[in-house]
Amino acid sequence: MGLHHHLVNDRIAATGGRKLSTHHPPSKTLASDIFPSSSVVAERTQICMPPPPSSSPPSLLARLASSASLASRLSISRLFSSSPAAMDPTEDSLRKALAGRQAAVDAQGNAVRALKAGKAPKPEIDAAIKALNDLKIEKADVEKRLQAAVSGGAGDGALTREAFRHAVVNTLERRLFYIPSFKIYRGVAGLYDYGPPGCAVKSNILAYWRQHFVHEENMLEVDCPCVTPEIVLKASGHVDKFTDLMVKDEKTGTCYRADHLLKDFCNEKLQKDLSISAEKAAELKLVLATLDDLSADKLGAKIKEYGITAPDTKNPLSDPYPFNLMFQTSIGPSGMLPGYMRPETAQGIFVNFKDLYYYNGNKLPFAAAQIGQAFRNEISPRQGLLRVREFTLAEIEHFVDPEDKSHPKFSEVADLEFLMFPREQQMSGQSAIITRLGEAVSKGTVNNATLGYFIGRVYLFLTHLGIDKGRLRFRQHLANEMAHYAADCWDAEIECSYGWIECVGIADRSAFDLRAHTVRKSGVALVAHEKFAEPREVEKLVIVPNKKELGLAFKGNQKMVVESLEAMGEEEAFQLKAALESKGEAEFLVCAMGKSVIIKDNMVNISKQKIRENQRVFTPSVIEPSFGIGRIIYCLFEHSFYTRPNKAGDEQFNVFRFPPLVAPIKCTVFPLIQKPEYESVAQLISRSLTVAGVSHKIDITGNTIGKRYARTDELGVPFAITVDSQVDVTIRERDSKDQVRVSVGEVASVVMEVIDGHRTWSDVWSSFPHHTSASAED
Amino acid sequence: MGLHHHLVNDRIAATGGRKLSTHHPPSKTLASDIFPSSSVVAERTQICMPPPPSSSPPSLLARLASSASLASRLSISRLFSSSPAAMDPTEDSLRKALAGRQAAVDAQGNAVRALKAGKAPKPEIDAAIKALNDLKIEKADVEKRLQAAVSGGAGDGALTREAFRHAVVNTLERRLFYIPSFKIYRGVAGLYDYGPPGCAVKSNILAYWRQHFVHEENMLEVDCPCVTPEIVLKASGHVDKFTDLMVKDEKTGTCYRADHLLKDFCNEKLQKDLSISAEKAAELKLVLATLDDLSADKLGAKIKEYGITAPDTKNPLSDPYPFNLMFQTSIGPSGMLPGYMRPETAQGIFVNFKDLYYYNGNKLPFAAAQIGQAFRNEISPRQGLLRVREFTLAEIEHFVDPEDKSHPKFSEVADLEFLMFPREQQMSGQSAIITRLGEAVSKGTVNNATLGYFIGRVYLFLTHLGIDKGRLRFRQHLANEMAHYAADCWDAEIECSYGWIECVGIADRSAFDLRAHTVRKSGVALVAHEKFAEPREVEKLVIVPNKKELGLAFKGNQKMVVESLEAMGEEEAFQLKAALESKGEAEFLVCAMGKSVIIKDNMVNISKQKIRENQRVFTPSVIEPSFGIGRIIYCLFEHSFYTRPNKAGDEQFNVFRFPPLVAPIKCTVFPLIQKPEYESVAQLISRSLTVAGVSHKIDITGNTIGKRYARTDELGVPFAITVDSQVDVTIRERDSKDQVRVSVGEVASVVMEVIDGHRTWSDVWSSFPHHTSASAED
Repeated sequence: MGLHHHLVNDRIAATGGRKLSTHHPPSKTLASDIFPSSSVVAERTQICMPPPPSSSPPSLLARLASSASLASRLSISRLFSSSPAAMDPTEDSLRKALAGRQAAVDAQGNAVRALKAGKAPKPEIDAAIKALNDLKIEKADVEKRLQAAVSGGAGDGALTREAFRHAVVNTLERRLFYIPSFKIYRGVAGLYDYGPPGCAVKSNILAYWRQHFVHEENMLEVDCPCVTPEIVLKASGHVDKFTDLMVKDEKTGTCYRADHLLKDFCNEKLQKDLSISAEKAAELKLVLATLDDLSADKLGAKIKEYGITAPDTKNPLSDPYPFNLMFQTSIGPSGMLPGYMRPETAQGIFVNFKDLYYYNGNKLPFAAAQIGQAFRNEISPRQGLLRVREFTLAEIEHFVDPEDKSHPKFSEVADLEFLMFPREQQMSGQSAIITRLGEAVSKGTVNNATLGYFIGRVYLFLTHLGIDKGRLRFRQHLANEMAHYAADCWDAEIECSYGWIECVGIADRSAFDLRAHTVRKSGVALVAHEKFAEPREVEKLVIVPNKKELGLAFKGNQKMVVESLEAMGEEEAFQLKAALESKGEAEFLVCAMGKSVIIKDNMVNISKQKIRENQRVFTPSVIEPSFGIGRIIYCLFEHSFYTRPNKAGDEQFNVFRFPPLVAPIKCTVFPLIQKPEYESVAQLISRSLTVAGVSHKIDITGNTIGKRYARTDELGVPFAITVDSQVDVTIRERDSKDQVRVSVGEVASVVMEVIDGHRTWSDVWSSFPHHTSASAED
Repeated sequence: MGLHHHLVNDRIAATGGRKLSTHHPPSKTLASDIFPSSSVVAERTQICMPPPPSSSPPSLLARLASSASLASRLSISRLFSSSPAAMDPTEDSLRKALAGRQAAVDAQGNAVRALKAGKAPKPEIDAAIKALNDLKIEKADVEKRLQAAVSGGAGDGALTREAFRHAVVNTLERRLFYIPSFKIYRGVAGLYDYGPPGCAVKSNILAYWRQHFVHEENMLEVDCPCVTPEIVLKASGHVDKFTDLMVKDEKTGTCYRADHLLKDFCNEKLQKDLSISAEKAAELKLVLATLDDLSADKLGAKIKEYGITAPDTKNPLSDPYPFNLMFQTSIGPSGMLPGYMRPETAQGIFVNFKDLYYYNGNKLPFAAAQIGQAFRNEISPRQGLLRVREFTLAEIEHFVDPEDKSHPKFSEVADLEFLMFPREQQMSGQSAIITRLGEAVSKGTVNNATLGYFIGRVYLFLTHLGIDKGRLRFRQHLANEMAHYAADCWDAEIECSYGWIECVGIADRSAFDLRAHTVRKSGVALVAHEKFAEPREVEKLVIVPNKKELGLAFKGNQKMVVESLEAMGEEEAFQLKAALESKGEAEFLVCAMGKSVIIKDNMVNISKQKIRENQRVFTPSVIEPSFGIGRIIYCLFEHSFYTRPNKAGDEQFNVFRFPPLVAPIKCTVFPLIQKPEYESVAQLISRSLTVAGVSHKIDITGNTIGKRYARTDELGVPFAITVDSQVDVTIRERDSKDQVRVSVGEVASVVMEVIDGHRTWSDVWSSFPHHTSASAED
């Protein structure tokens, strides 16, 4: 995965996303369970459908759309997850109204003072005071509405979202889905452990990823080290460009991300200081919108202009300067071989292209894949599991002939329909729309069928895990979001309480990555060949180094110089030719030597000639789906979480509605009461489940059955087997709480069938006698 | 996994092992396939059964056994994988014989010269010359035998082993089982990629590990980051002690492992310089045997004494000094938080003990497990996949009450019989012997049943993967190999061409690891509780800090001082008490403050009192099976590899006999000839296999079927489906090359059944018609 791609997208994804409406009905998800029913509609509307109705006047958003730098602004404006009305015209008019009310209050205050000073009659003064108080009440009302507008739509929407997140995170941490790493040593920001249930969810997701992508498509999976020598990441561009801008507290040396400080200042001002003028508010919003386009100089200037100081000490801040996000280390004992912990897994695949192409019988297309750890030394990690310093990536590099990006299996996904959010819709302020994938490809919205195929496969993967279709969209990168070399990029974004989060990037990165490592840097050509049936005549750049002269001039380095000359592109070669013809010599950079040399005109001959060729030699294009596994897991946690009351209605229980595929434990076994006969039946069933490979847990504590159900619902265990006889037992399904009676001998295989997807619960429900027990639950 | 444990064992494992005889018949493995039949017996004998016959006179080995430092010598003497006769008395007598022959030749030469000088009669001179020549021939013969003795037993044994390894490694690299990482940039020593088949083998092994250990035992699997802050590894001891001794070329700065240079010098001398005296040879051997016990000073003195210089430049070397093997880095942008890439995964589990204990309902025993990358910045990595700078570990930490180390499932493994090599056998120069595990535990050879249970489970795991039982032994650590705190340690060692390699360490590490992180360092007590049915009276250390005085003296640090005082052990507390009583004050180290403070006698009261207690608070013991996955994989590659000739006998084909569980691809599908009808049948079968989750490969190239079989045998694919009709197809088994005919509709499920282990091949062989085709193979 390339540099630009990551930097831009991660910044976007990290900060959440501006909510965009969909024409999709609110799906039946968490809302009805977790929120009090009265707020359900509002919350759903707020999360999925904040309307700029199509008949509304052109908003700021639409007006911005004509600006040249719109693209980045738009993408960055999606920051406002906690101030969804940022671009809302009501906020603007409320600020103006508030300024008017303030002026009226001031004027009336003056009038009262004048009346008092002029010793006006008491009734007159009283009337004026009453008018002043009325104006103050009016002002307070506008203030309240403005406060509501800037802090989250319906007023308590943001709070509700926070409360929801708090409930999820609390359950996740309490049940050890994850744990802040090295907690007993007070932890390290941006590092998390997966505890037992989280680790199981992760390993289930990775196993399914391997099945869904690697096995299904016969991909070549590789496993490369995290420790990477500098030369590789120099070639890929990471050493020079994988940076964020940072400022330092000039007295304590504490570091901050420069854009975060400016962003926090603007957001704080907009949300907390209601007295600022509508103009000032617009200015701050523009700063937020252009945050990502700001150079170090401009960012520094803004920080100075606003008088922003270090948040912890109020000390002055340094000018912003770039900080490389890679963890640096040193390989071997000499200290002479600098290295980094890889910031992505993709480079390991690119440098192996030649061997993998050979392994695939020198045939295109083929895909390589890798699952592994990646590392980014974030300046100041936020947002829990979404922005961390070490994370698991699963990346696919699909290599294709740039002249043929069709895909033989595209028809298998062409009829899928889901939320797509093409560039045009974003530019014109419209919403993501449900689109048939086949149409998006045939209309050219999606650049090619291979890219489209992977979009479809990613959609199937995510929804199969339990991601809510209504909160999943594929957003196309805007022109200036994409690297210059990329043909097209789509992000699978999942909506959670932090906004829309980029969880999978699917990019057609053309030939960039393979070229980055090609001859000039590594000495190895990362190219493919297409044999022609008959030789063809082509006009071609011909570079003929004069090895004798070069040998005399460069001795042992001759080979490196020759290879560098031969590896020139057309433009570079003709520039060199022109220089040699005009000046007789020219400087020429030989990367392998790490320096420039002087080339004389007798050392190389450069020309264009017609040649008969037997094959075409080309650099393949790379189509890259790249999965942030931790982000997918976090979003899945939110999408799977709901609460339900007990029968008495005085207590709420937490549930994760994981599908069996994902559930950390597939089944529990409970003896209803502590009784040796029941316990031995439970042990018997446990053995059968182990043999069947069904991960399960046996709980022989004396807790009430309701308590035990509640505990395992909170872990997302889909089925519970309760032993209340030595003949028949019950299976209870987590979400419906329905129970059936099954014989002891049969129960393990029934559960296994449902878990493996060979049988549905409703089939089980209709095949076995139902069990009802008033006492069983609460 | 603790420090000492790793340092000692890794050094041993890294350098291979001296071969020790077994009373086990040579198993039917690679020998008969890979070696020409004439050398089979010799080679097997050599690898598994080099006899010191029980009636032989006390060898050097046996004599050494009485020495105090025997233990480490013995374990280090296992270095001599390439000089198996190191301790062999024949070598000693041959050296003496050679010296005698040399003296005789010299004397006879002088005699000839004297005769010539004295102008003796020609026949006399001729006779003397003839006698001289005979003596030279005799000397040459002794020389030859000595050469054979020092370079590998039967003379060409070492060569054959090298040739075998060469054949395996060549196949592994050519078929991309692994690839030197960053090859196009000339690679980095000690870093390897797993290519497609290697990656699949690895992922199959990890999946099976998870099933066999984590699911079967309901372990709590966790997933912690690789980046680890210094404080954690300071507490564990790694920052101070995880080092190897290094020397530098004084002119170029190139680094070498000091013990490697000394070892290479001694081995080279012993093997190549036949003129050294038997006494000198014995000295060099003693150095080799004590290599691991040498301090930096002694190692440096030996290097000086032998005049060892830098191998590449012959420059003088620096004195040896310790080099920490951890990759260092810095967390966050300030440079103020040093960190390391973890050298093992275990610490992540230990620091989470408290949460995991709670998760397990505050009950012992329970086990936590983790699979993940670990990093060691080796000074000079050797031995390919066996000694690398980044590797996958799979570790289990089983926490038990130190007073009850029984195991409820021990009976399930008690009847297993395999090669065990207890301390006593090693000390007395005997061999590993086949032992019933139950007996080893009941006799106390294995310290406790839980340790024994894991030994049994590891045995089942490894042999199920395909590790040859005859080349797998469990070797107990000698007394001085073990850390002082350890109760008992056994290594699963696998024999390969490098000797006996430690692949799994199974250690009872007592309370060491949890104590390392306990209150004094982290502020958190990593302890367990046992509630008593009734209160018990116990005599206990009572430490009562005077908070008022401490508060006055230490202000804000008071809490840290109090906690540190309360966390003292008995010995330390009474030392402090004595110091306070004699001097009125004492220095006291407060780890949390990073410095010592002065404690006065009015600040704390220390006494021993009888107390009634309701529970016992104790630090659990840790039993730790720790798996070096890469080492297991490499040994498995060697144990699975064999060659067989084609029918004509003029070519050798390579085969990996992986069991289906491990095989990177389970099945291939070949249309016999290129024909659209066959191809569509092949595609149909391929779809069914995908649906059944069977990883497979379809090969529609026009290569002969024999060539295609040979190619996939070399990847270890167990089954091939060949399509030669639209009704029936053949399934061919890799090792027997037997073929059966099965209908197109049935074939996928038959293959799936065999692969899942629900059916054996011999059952398939007896259920379906056999297929014979003379042309099919070669």
